Amino acid sequence: MVFWKRLFNPDSPNSSEIPQFDGELVEVTAPSENPSRIFFSTEREIDLYELEELCDAVGWARRPLRKVKRALSYSFLVVSMWEVRGNKRRLIGFARATSDHAFNATIWDVVIHPKFQSQGLGKSMIKYMIRQLRNEDISNITLFADPHVIDFYRRLGFVLDPEGIKGMFWYPD
Amino acid sequence: MVFWKRLFNPDSPNSSEIPQFDGELVEVTAPSENPSRIFFSTEREIDLYELEELCDAVGWARRPLRKVKRALSYSFLVVSMWEVRGNKRRLIGFARATSDHAFNATIWDVVIHPKFQSQGLGKSMIKYMIRQLRNEDISNITLFADPHVIDFYRRLGFVLDPEGIKGMFWYPD
Ligand SMILES: CC(C)(COP(=O)(O)OP(=O)(O)OC[C@H]1O[C@@H](n2cnc3c(N)ncnc32)[C@H](O)[C@@H]1OP(=O)(O)O)[C@@H](O)C(=O)NCCC(=O)NCCS
Ligand SMILES: CC(C)(COP(=O)(O)OP(=O)(O)OC[C@H]1O[C@@H](n2cnc3c(N)ncnc32)[C@H](O)[C@@H]1OP(=O)(O)O)[C@@H](O)C(=O)NCCC(=O)NCCS
Repeated sequence: MVFWKRLFNPDSPNSSEIPQFDGELVEVTAPSENPSRIFFSTEREIDLYELEELCDAVGWARRPLRKVKRALSYSFLVVSMWEVRGNKRRLIGFARATSDHAFNATIWDVVIHPKFQSQGLGKSMIKYMIRQLRNEDISNITLFADPHVIDFYRRLGFVLDPEGIKGMFWYPD
Repeated sequence: MVFWKRLFNPDSPNSSEIPQFDGELVEVTAPSENPSRIFFSTEREIDLYELEELCDAVGWARRPLRKVKRALSYSFLVVSMWEVRGNKRRLIGFARATSDHAFNATIWDVVIHPKFQSQGLGKSMIKYMIRQLRNEDISNITLFADPHVIDFYRRLGFVLDPEGIKGMFWYPD
């Protein structure tokens, strides 16, 4: 919170300086001539409408915001990615993980805005999550991958069905 | 807690009566002539040494108790199964689930003591968990199944790799 307040306060003496915050900073080449900066954050107070817009952009089904809010607050790790131009910021990526805070974590809801895909941002975001989870001494990082993103995760070091362990989902009979 | 206190207090006027508690009750035919009663519980204050003994019995690798304690307290649902004979109780089954408390839950560490396997207890325990998770409005119940238990979960309504969604585990390069 301190981070955004400082970065977007025009009276701040050093608003162009990179301030400290609880996330991490990644600088990427902007696709347009107007250079933009891209930030990760682990703050949880994300505007739910902005998150919905991001999920809409990749065609995901809408979910009740009340439940999304609950899911964010009970996730172990929430990572968002922001494009910052001048004093405007825009949510361009998101992912979260549930966990028992000890052994296992499961990554859910990984998304990069279509305009920002295929620039290595999804990769950096997942690498960042892995680092955070390893820092918390979580040894078993898991996820359920849609068929079209299996290769994306494989390149990041995720193994499919290791030792024959299979993902299963319960459906009512 | 109230449940066990009442059940094991010999001064309690009605100690043989089935008291109310936050779990559920299952009565099964005991394998020996000495009839025993089997209970589910959702209380989290499980003796960690007793749990370790149960996991030892199925050959699982030991884990630091400090981390096990943390995992129990950060799991969304912890289910234990107890055999009650006279005023003694014994831990004979266990399972837990992590969750975002909104959409997804993942079941971990499912175990029934070898002496009590193949009597339908594992099945009742998972059915009980599903009921509890559905009651909490969790729609997506997931797990990672070892090859030898895939059929056990399939009979319970779990589907393998639905729509090609695959379980993946991260391993360091
Ligand atoms: C999947 C997604 C997060 C990837 O993010 P991204 O920023 O586009 O990916 P990156 O640019 O970081 O790609 C990293 C690497 O994975 C590869 N890759 C990216 N998307 C891929 C895909 N769908 N399938 C296979 N490989 C893929 C890239 O070619 C790149 O390879 P390289 O390291 O050899 O250069 C993003 O495309 C997305 O949000 N998709 C829609 C939502 C979605 O499907 N989420 C996953 C649900 S389980
Ligand atoms: C797997 C386990 C929890 C099953 O519990 P259980 O009490 O023995 O199982 P149940 O008696 O309730 O069996 C329910 C059904 O599954 C079947 N079943 C049980 N174990 C099975 C197995 N390993 N493979 C295939 N089917 C199995 C039973 O035949 C029964 O079928 P039915 O409904 O047609 O009668 C138990 O055997 C166990 O703790 N195993 C060791 C630990 C382990 O491997 N845990 C899973 C790690 S992912």
